[in-house]
Amino acid sequence: MANAKAELLTIGDEILFGQINDTNSQWMSQELDKVGIRVVRKTTVGDIRQDMMDAFAEAEKRADIILITGGLGPTNDDLTKPLLAEYFNCEIAMDEEALAEVTEFFNSKGRELTPVNRKQAELPICCERVSNRLGTAPGMWFERNGKVFVSMPGVPHEMKTMMKEIVIPKLQGHFQTDVIFHKVVKTIGIGESWLAEEIKVWEDALPEHIKLAYLPSLGQVKLRLTAVGPDMDTLKAEVEEQITELQKYASKYIYGYDKDEIQSVVGEMLKERNLTVAFAESCTGGFISHLITSIPGSSAYYQGSVVPYHNELKASVLGVKEETLIDNGAVSEETVIEMANNVRQKFNADLGIATSGVAGPDGGTPEKPVGTVWIAIADGEQTKARKLQLWKDRDVNIKATAIAALNLIRITLSKTIEIKN
Amino acid sequence: MANAKAELLTIGDEILFGQINDTNSQWMSQELDKVGIRVVRKTTVGDIRQDMMDAFAEAEKRADIILITGGLGPTNDDLTKPLLAEYFNCEIAMDEEALAEVTEFFNSKGRELTPVNRKQAELPICCERVSNRLGTAPGMWFERNGKVFVSMPGVPHEMKTMMKEIVIPKLQGHFQTDVIFHKVVKTIGIGESWLAEEIKVWEDALPEHIKLAYLPSLGQVKLRLTAVGPDMDTLKAEVEEQITELQKYASKYIYGYDKDEIQSVVGEMLKERNLTVAFAESCTGGFISHLITSIPGSSAYYQGSVVPYHNELKASVLGVKEETLIDNGAVSEETVIEMANNVRQKFNADLGIATSGVAGPDGGTPEKPVGTVWIAIADGEQTKARKLQLWKDRDVNIKATAIAALNLIRITLSKTIEIKN
Repeated sequence: MANAKAELLTIGDEILFGQINDTNSQWMSQELDKVGIRVVRKTTVGDIRQDMMDAFAEAEKRADIILITGGLGPTNDDLTKPLLAEYFNCEIAMDEEALAEVTEFFNSKGRELTPVNRKQAELPICCERVSNRLGTAPGMWFERNGKVFVSMPGVPHEMKTMMKEIVIPKLQGHFQTDVIFHKVVKTIGIGESWLAEEIKVWEDALPEHIKLAYLPSLGQVKLRLTAVGPDMDTLKAEVEEQITELQKYASKYIYGYDKDEIQSVVGEMLKERNLTVAFAESCTGGFISHLITSIPGSSAYYQGSVVPYHNELKASVLGVKEETLIDNGAVSEETVIEMANNVRQKFNADLGIATSGVAGPDGGTPEKPVGTVWIAIADGEQTKARKLQLWKDRDVNIKATAIAALNLIRITLSKTIEIKN
Repeated sequence: MANAKAELLTIGDEILFGQINDTNSQWMSQELDKVGIRVVRKTTVGDIRQDMMDAFAEAEKRADIILITGGLGPTNDDLTKPLLAEYFNCEIAMDEEALAEVTEFFNSKGRELTPVNRKQAELPICCERVSNRLGTAPGMWFERNGKVFVSMPGVPHEMKTMMKEIVIPKLQGHFQTDVIFHKVVKTIGIGESWLAEEIKVWEDALPEHIKLAYLPSLGQVKLRLTAVGPDMDTLKAEVEEQITELQKYASKYIYGYDKDEIQSVVGEMLKERNLTVAFAESCTGGFISHLITSIPGSSAYYQGSVVPYHNELKASVLGVKEETLIDNGAVSEETVIEMANNVRQKFNADLGIATSGVAGPDGGTPEKPVGTVWIAIADGEQTKARKLQLWKDRDVNIKATAIAALNLIRITLSKTIEIKN
């Protein structure tokens, strides 16, 4: 059983000129890979008639599935729709369902439909409309000689929703694909090369048809297991067996699997234990709160946060003692401990977590260089603080501190088994 | 004078499968653009003999310059070198200069040259070696019928150094190039199609050699002007003239140019006016604070924030009256106004900004469906509130609210010309 082959075709001068980076195509590759569709080529061309028509014809020769993003806006430089109509040799006419959808989209925002947006509901009559519930440009699905062309908007959240909800399920229905099973094991708090050493024995014993990849990101390493074979149930069982084995070597670093994020795992742990949290974020400037509240339903365990960026607010709003700040500075074990204790009390939470550090690029001293960070967690009985020595980059330091703080909650909760109330 | 055309060819299964993102090609596009070389296509193929040979031949037909990255490692799955030798029909032999260079590279690290690395110094005899001072795989420069192929390693810092120090200067010597000038105008608070209508008269009057592109993202639209011609100074003057003209139609939506971000522009406005801000973020959960503190030096104008996620904290920490919450609910004009006023006072800031809304996916009611958001700004003299009706997606709602809140600060400050103190 051969895999269906896909080509990704991105339309847009802005990508050729390097003004924006094409992040869509990596995401699309990953999603297609999961359902056994193999991307054999990625092509980017500009908003130019001949280049686009050539690219359609070349892709049709090479691939079974051609996924096109971009060039669907309402303005004159957007050529994808008229050129696909020409390529498939059919007229463009008003699609009443698309018109109803875009009208509803505008009504829901209390706005009038403009003539330009009305025109977006016109579609080639030889395509099937792909509903776009987050925007005004519908997608288009064309079939010819067993090959499928799908055109989608380049706006990432519109394209992703369309792919997940409509395009991928429909492609799975059309193409018989080899069975591939991926499982991602998520680790935190250990670097790639140290992890590789810890799990070497296990890795060396993996069977031939199960491959391992290390995917490192800030403070985390994902281990992706990819199994290929004729039967999905067998593959799943084999991968689960390997993961049970892996636990023997790395259980304390493993926080979740697949779509789990450290913020969702910590959220689940809090919910199970019926505990609440509050944050006092100095150097992280609200980023931990953003991660926590990005999870639907976080109001069940998240009380709130304070970002006392200016030092006077650490005293006036959060009640850190002036002498603590004067004697030790804002970036210190003493200050971060008071911050964690006080936010816990003031925000009526079971756990208080605090961060304070020198994110950079300025503000470093010989004793506290850029990248010096303190984090603390208070549970009402004890308060633990940790010092991190991070990097020179502001953005990296903010994000790495947030990950470390979430991991500190995970570690603390892993040791707490009693349930409140 | 026509521009030399370039095609970027990336080799690697790991990019097709979505395991790594191709950031090289965006950087290469930007650098080539600066010297007037126009990228007409980007192609990615896997480490597969036939796909690579096809890609070489297709690119040679379309472009004058073919820049290849990847597939130069020492292992057997790296095919670029043998296939280029085959494509240009010549032998591979030891290159003594390359050998001296790689030996020196190893010596400088105190290591012995391995047989595998020694083999990396073998090159097709029909190419010119491109020195790689940061790695072990030399680049290769081929010429045939006026066309140039350059092969470089995929490792970003090796490729970038090679491009900047050798490849680009050499290409400039080979191809007489037209000059291209880009300028991006950043707008906020108006959708693509409405903006297109507002600036239609101006757009229709643009001269032939200045092109316009609309680049929409959440709550923002970038307008990219691209001018092509023989003289850079003339192009810059012409584009500036067009932007002055554009201001007549769209000045209230324009917040910046090129690399400007709304959070940095708002930061600069606050700094110039010697004003400080504080935020009370409910539905945005810390995301506005994160955007503001992502800018180095934001402590000059950012006091801090509170995220009173749980309703009791809106009263206990922020002092919103219980009756306001009971009578109107947390998502209301009355509540968001008190939040803005109170955070301004408690955090000792000149401006207080507040958000409260139903981010979703749950929590909507018929009167306040998911996507209902209130934002407010208080300056001590007056407090203005605005209602937004956003989307169904939690992540989109959080980000769109943050952009709208930053834009509300921009609009308020644009009307404020007096300087404090």
